[in-house]
Amino acid sequence: MRVLVYGSGQLAQMMYLAGCPLGIDVQAVDVNSDTIVHPVNKTLLESNLELAIESADALTVEFEHVPERLLEQAAKTSKLMPSIEAILVGADRVREKRLLDRLSVPNCLYQIVSDIEQLDECVAKLGDKLIIKASRDGYDGYGQWRMTDIAQLDELKKALSALDLNAVPLVVEKMLQFDRELSLIGVRGKKGEIKIYPLTENLHHQGQLHVSVAPALDISPALQSEAENIFTTLAEGMEYIGVLAVEMFQCGNTLLVNELAPRVHNSGHWTLSGSDTSQFENHLRAVAGLPLGDTVAKQPSAMVNIIGCCSFSRDLLSIPGCHLHWYGKSVRDKRKMGHINVTADSYISLGEKLEQLAQYLPLEYFPKLLKEAARLKQSYTTPC
Amino acid sequence: MRVLVYGSGQLAQMMYLAGCPLGIDVQAVDVNSDTIVHPVNKTLLESNLELAIESADALTVEFEHVPERLLEQAAKTSKLMPSIEAILVGADRVREKRLLDRLSVPNCLYQIVSDIEQLDECVAKLGDKLIIKASRDGYDGYGQWRMTDIAQLDELKKALSALDLNAVPLVVEKMLQFDRELSLIGVRGKKGEIKIYPLTENLHHQGQLHVSVAPALDISPALQSEAENIFTTLAEGMEYIGVLAVEMFQCGNTLLVNELAPRVHNSGHWTLSGSDTSQFENHLRAVAGLPLGDTVAKQPSAMVNIIGCCSFSRDLLSIPGCHLHWYGKSVRDKRKMGHINVTADSYISLGEKLEQLAQYLPLEYFPKLLKEAARLKQSYTTPC
Repeated sequence: MRVLVYGSGQLAQMMYLAGCPLGIDVQAVDVNSDTIVHPVNKTLLESNLELAIESADALTVEFEHVPERLLEQAAKTSKLMPSIEAILVGADRVREKRLLDRLSVPNCLYQIVSDIEQLDECVAKLGDKLIIKASRDGYDGYGQWRMTDIAQLDELKKALSALDLNAVPLVVEKMLQFDRELSLIGVRGKKGEIKIYPLTENLHHQGQLHVSVAPALDISPALQSEAENIFTTLAEGMEYIGVLAVEMFQCGNTLLVNELAPRVHNSGHWTLSGSDTSQFENHLRAVAGLPLGDTVAKQPSAMVNIIGCCSFSRDLLSIPGCHLHWYGKSVRDKRKMGHINVTADSYISLGEKLEQLAQYLPLEYFPKLLKEAARLKQSYTTPC
Repeated sequence: MRVLVYGSGQLAQMMYLAGCPLGIDVQAVDVNSDTIVHPVNKTLLESNLELAIESADALTVEFEHVPERLLEQAAKTSKLMPSIEAILVGADRVREKRLLDRLSVPNCLYQIVSDIEQLDECVAKLGDKLIIKASRDGYDGYGQWRMTDIAQLDELKKALSALDLNAVPLVVEKMLQFDRELSLIGVRGKKGEIKIYPLTENLHHQGQLHVSVAPALDISPALQSEAENIFTTLAEGMEYIGVLAVEMFQCGNTLLVNELAPRVHNSGHWTLSGSDTSQFENHLRAVAGLPLGDTVAKQPSAMVNIIGCCSFSRDLLSIPGCHLHWYGKSVRDKRKMGHINVTADSYISLGEKLEQLAQYLPLEYFPKLLKEAARLKQSYTTPC
């Protein structure tokens, strides 16, 4: 069994590591050179993409911004999972909004803008606190603007008028007062079976995920169930196969979908330690037509991203339940270099371990860590 | 950080998979061709062994029967962990017995035979129920003979007289009435720190391990502690670095060491699911000088070897807590093709899962499975 993953970053690498024990050979498509590379050491495995597609049993993606010509070629084989439509929903906020509306999935109030003058209409309809997103090629906070005061409107118009809004319209959303950011990772198999991980709480900084905690604290059964209904509606509505990540805002007892990622997702990395079956293994099981694995959380877990730094003490491994996942990339500003998974018997112990962890890390790169450790230490939520 | 493993089988492969997330590049030495290969797909990485040794940070082994010329070359670098002496102890039963005696570690009564006529003396000293083992190159029950009645002595002498006993003496042991076979897997780091997994119970069939259960049932704290003392004596006595497996017989409240394996061991495969840190990760952490990981058993676990067969239903993955580890080898009689790890919340549930598992497997290859499932289902031991 061979699975070809479009994209050759850390997600393909972690799929490779999950595939080996299942006897699934995961290979990666370098979408810049149209060649097939080893997902870990990136050596060339095959230079003929068509041959590789032919010999693969399943095709999938590690990111949604795969060039459309490649996706179209892949879609012709009927081996591509999830479908090209589902992948493009993740790559294009206009498609995403249309899907959410079609399936009546609650999401943030928005307007689509393909002419800069429509911004005035947005203000009239959505108010003067706006988040403006390019509909395509946005990733980790790039291609986003904020307006917090009407006085910024003219300046914004000037900045945005440089863009070709006909080709890439803007999605303008009312800035939301939300309690926190959650995500739900789930997986749908070839026969339509669905398994869903518990809601994960995500802490962002400058548009990038820094810390995840799972299961998210203080989630009522009703809220988890609402999230699962949203997942099921989306996955069934797209006839989705594989892992799908749904990013949401919690506002009181309500969930609003912010974004879909048609792939394994950074906020699901905790499943490598904290669940019986990781999101990587479950994605492969799904596209390979194997039974899906258990998604129950075994213990409270945290995932700490290592962003833009490579110098820290490996003695962090002395913390019980602490595991490093290093991606082997050269360091760049804001680049995700790896992550650290931590599990504990309780949220309080998890907070203590994050506090210990902080001692081994250059904290300027981990701006969310200590505060989250303190919050967990004061938690009274019963684990799992 | 690069670790070179002598041997390119499944143990090197599982070390590779454990090494990746730590940023440790594990490469394998094919000891038949003296070349360096990728531990998973076995492609050639380097044909010059000396260069590879030079560029590696640590050298280790996946099996003890590495040709001595290679071990001696490796030992010259001072990067070989464990030491050549420790590896040879695992490869030579005479050395092994000498070590056990020197460190006063209880083991089975024995005589060393380098002349076939000494067998009579063995009978006089050890009785007429004997296990006779070639001192070298014995693996999975090969090179072993049994005498259960004195009438077999002449026939045995005839068979054994074909061997060069001067070059490869025999170790003759009194056949033991033991309750069960246990093993203890532990790891010792570069600074002498030690972490030990709980005792594992092992079920063999025709000299091969078929099923392991961990933690072994009904182990008193005193017995676990006795086993840990034995481990510590051996590991410190050899100034051992890495994972060491100690196979033992339990006779009432006593443990007798049967065999040492200076490496990760089949009876420790359950740690991939059942412990926070797998034996593979801990071996790499040790030889890389990293802090050792937690060895506590999180849940009752079973490991079921897949031996000599490759045709079974992958629907076994539908059992929660059930994970396949496939080695990707071509099938041969008696060959270890992979293993299945199963975890559960209790031993009774573990037994039920093994019973379910049996429905997906061709039982002629799994002669120990159903009986062990039944035994676990009747267990009243509190887990972990």
